[in-house]
Amino acid sequence: MADKKMVEAITSMDEDFAQWYTDIVKKADLCDYTSVKGCMVFKPAGYAIWELIQRQLDDRFKATGVENVYLPMFIPESLLEKEKDHVEGFAPEVAWVTQGGLQPLQEKLCVRPTSETLFCDFYKNLIHSYRDLPKVYNQWCSVVRWEKETRPFLRSREFLWQEGHTIHASHDEAQERTIQMLNIYADFCEDFLAMPVVRGRKTDKEKFAGAEATYTIEALMHDGKALQSGTSHNFGDGFARAFGIQYTDNQNTLQYPYQTSWGVTTRLIGAIIMVHGDNEGLVLPPKVAPTQVMVIPIQQKKEGVLEKAQDICDRVGRIARTKLDSSDKSPGWKFADCEMRGIPLRIEIGPRDLEEGKCIVVRRDTREKTPVMLSELEERIPQMLDRMQKDMYNRAREHRDAHIWDAHNYQEFKDIAENKPGFIRAMWCENRECEDKIKADLGVTSRCMPFNDDDQISDVCACCGKPAKKLVYWGKAY
Amino acid sequence: MADKKMVEAITSMDEDFAQWYTDIVKKADLCDYTSVKGCMVFKPAGYAIWELIQRQLDDRFKATGVENVYLPMFIPESLLEKEKDHVEGFAPEVAWVTQGGLQPLQEKLCVRPTSETLFCDFYKNLIHSYRDLPKVYNQWCSVVRWEKETRPFLRSREFLWQEGHTIHASHDEAQERTIQMLNIYADFCEDFLAMPVVRGRKTDKEKFAGAEATYTIEALMHDGKALQSGTSHNFGDGFARAFGIQYTDNQNTLQYPYQTSWGVTTRLIGAIIMVHGDNEGLVLPPKVAPTQVMVIPIQQKKEGVLEKAQDICDRVGRIARTKLDSSDKSPGWKFADCEMRGIPLRIEIGPRDLEEGKCIVVRRDTREKTPVMLSELEERIPQMLDRMQKDMYNRAREHRDAHIWDAHNYQEFKDIAENKPGFIRAMWCENRECEDKIKADLGVTSRCMPFNDDDQISDVCACCGKPAKKLVYWGKAY
Repeated sequence: MADKKMVEAITSMDEDFAQWYTDIVKKADLCDYTSVKGCMVFKPAGYAIWELIQRQLDDRFKATGVENVYLPMFIPESLLEKEKDHVEGFAPEVAWVTQGGLQPLQEKLCVRPTSETLFCDFYKNLIHSYRDLPKVYNQWCSVVRWEKETRPFLRSREFLWQEGHTIHASHDEAQERTIQMLNIYADFCEDFLAMPVVRGRKTDKEKFAGAEATYTIEALMHDGKALQSGTSHNFGDGFARAFGIQYTDNQNTLQYPYQTSWGVTTRLIGAIIMVHGDNEGLVLPPKVAPTQVMVIPIQQKKEGVLEKAQDICDRVGRIARTKLDSSDKSPGWKFADCEMRGIPLRIEIGPRDLEEGKCIVVRRDTREKTPVMLSELEERIPQMLDRMQKDMYNRAREHRDAHIWDAHNYQEFKDIAENKPGFIRAMWCENRECEDKIKADLGVTSRCMPFNDDDQISDVCACCGKPAKKLVYWGKAY
Repeated sequence: MADKKMVEAITSMDEDFAQWYTDIVKKADLCDYTSVKGCMVFKPAGYAIWELIQRQLDDRFKATGVENVYLPMFIPESLLEKEKDHVEGFAPEVAWVTQGGLQPLQEKLCVRPTSETLFCDFYKNLIHSYRDLPKVYNQWCSVVRWEKETRPFLRSREFLWQEGHTIHASHDEAQERTIQMLNIYADFCEDFLAMPVVRGRKTDKEKFAGAEATYTIEALMHDGKALQSGTSHNFGDGFARAFGIQYTDNQNTLQYPYQTSWGVTTRLIGAIIMVHGDNEGLVLPPKVAPTQVMVIPIQQKKEGVLEKAQDICDRVGRIARTKLDSSDKSPGWKFADCEMRGIPLRIEIGPRDLEEGKCIVVRRDTREKTPVMLSELEERIPQMLDRMQKDMYNRAREHRDAHIWDAHNYQEFKDIAENKPGFIRAMWCENRECEDKIKADLGVTSRCMPFNDDDQISDVCACCGKPAKKLVYWGKAY
């Protein structure tokens, strides 16, 4: 049977999580490899998820006054080099254009790995007076980082993202914007992607090249590894000083402005897969599902079945993103296909249902089957989608919370790192040596210092035993 | 006076059209130059126009079954070279990446100037059976062409566009899609951008590199020059043969599929400027105006004025994209600023209007002032926006039609080309020699062979006098 064969083709997640992930990506038709090493094709099913993410985030950004712009994809070498830490962080992994048309270029251009330097160059000409501040700009684009190891959505040489770049008169205002955008990301992940996140600050070791402080949201994947899912950086006036951006304040004094940047990428699609997927395939939270409901006729050649299925599709289509699968495949194949693609609800309608004026609605996540009267579809479908969205969040949250382990000393830290997948909470002295040792010994990195750190689990650093200063979430990470 | 000064800063369009264009682009804050030669920044006012174009076209595409995807921005040299005409057309103007990270690349990659070759590479792996056809894909992205002379929106080294790439089982189906998309572009330009276009086919000389036939929409700018505003190409099975794309049909026979591609770019923003702009600045058709209505309080410090202006902004904001200018600039400055930015309607509200329960609505295109009762705003504003959209189309169409000249012989052709800006309609024998001679002598190129060619104006070629085969629109072009 085709449906059986299709399902068998996925590796079980417990057997080989990495292979399970790759199988889903391919079988759910999200993306494909290309002749361009390290780059991928976003197929319609994958790109449609990104479109929903874009639309939703863009609306949330704009509600806070963000305006979209578009800057060039190329950065002249001399511009990239202006901020010392920044160029050190990015120069080793950029692609260089050295020839334009038939001529070698006088100055080589890198394909943007991120656009801080371009925005600084732009702002330098734009900002003169305090009246020109703030600017709260964002762009949707692709960026390139010449990675050696790549994985679909999680790490590729070219990926899609948005990058916000803002400039402010005061450090306080920049800091406020930095946190505001992090919170937008966190709320979006929890509300729209049904994915709980830990909000916090990165250690100095893990912060963005050139930033004063980097803030992050960290999510836990089903295999217990962390995924950095969005970051927001406060640059202080470091870039402004490096680029000579100045404005006259209302006392007519020259000042350096303060900057931020913040971004999320198509790796969020990888996060959705690894937080919600199961052994039957992808499971999409209803809000981010390009198709929310699939109508599948049973014995579709019997009189009236296909017409009724079409009628249901039209009616439900007015309140949810709905499709009808009227292909000549078997119902079993269609069910399996629907499950593989993660479509939240499927509606089964056959000759007997027709007589009884009902249909069967099946939830993708629980596979729960509910008979629903046809007359009640408009009422019930939105309720079921809503319920599923909430349940998926709660389940992900329970899974996450059940995989947070406290380490009070190094022995505990070691035991957990070796045996228990998930986040490790441990106190830290704030010395780089301990952070380096933990990574070298145990293979875990500091994910973040959470905003909510009331729960100080000990007075001493779990690594060196000296007085502790910060609670840190540690973990293996993608 | 600030308002006076601002307006004087624009060159008159009759004095120097090119400078007028550049002034508008800068003064209406649409874009800016950058440190990257030949590349531009899309500022918020310019990018917001593109966002409206994108949203509208994307909806129209999707209504015909188009799905969005995203392919890599890099093309390996060997892939670009597979179709002979195509590589000849594009190789001289691409940017080459030769280094990735710290290593030279084994094979150089060009930054996509267009993505036919990548789509072929993708389709080759995707298409096996007639059941896999058709695919009707599109992507929104930026492309790079290493132009020597650049002008904002009209020609730059990087520009934004959409490129549709479809693949079909039959030549007829491909041809139908080619024309369908051209018609979508034409309807969009006429309905949404209020810009009349001529639909037709390109001569072989002017067709796309690798295409069997190229179709185009051609618009007339205010200075009488033509702007190619969108193209749609039928590739026949040429690319499929070059790339070895084959499928088995329902008789189990191997066949080559047929392909199309079609695109419009950010040069449409240049077209809007040059079709509708005037000596006071930009004039935006309401449908493509990011801000459709600007509310400007008069004597805003007088009691109740600002509150009422805000109230009007809130009310009108529910039915049109509306802003309030409550800055401390003078009303005169605000009027001029609004005109410069092309905002379709401005609402003036002062203490006297307040008493009378009315406001003044001023149309950007005609500067016509209409008193409107505050109680009637919700009814009148949409009517006025609608009226303005239609009037702008009709005015552009009248201007266009008044600048179409018929040439029956070479002397007439020469007289018109030298003295009368606009489209020249003339019969053609279909020989390349005549087309080349007309370009060399008169500086005009063939723009298109119109679909609607009932009006055969002569039996003989206007150049050589031999029997004519086609009616052609000729013109100087951007």
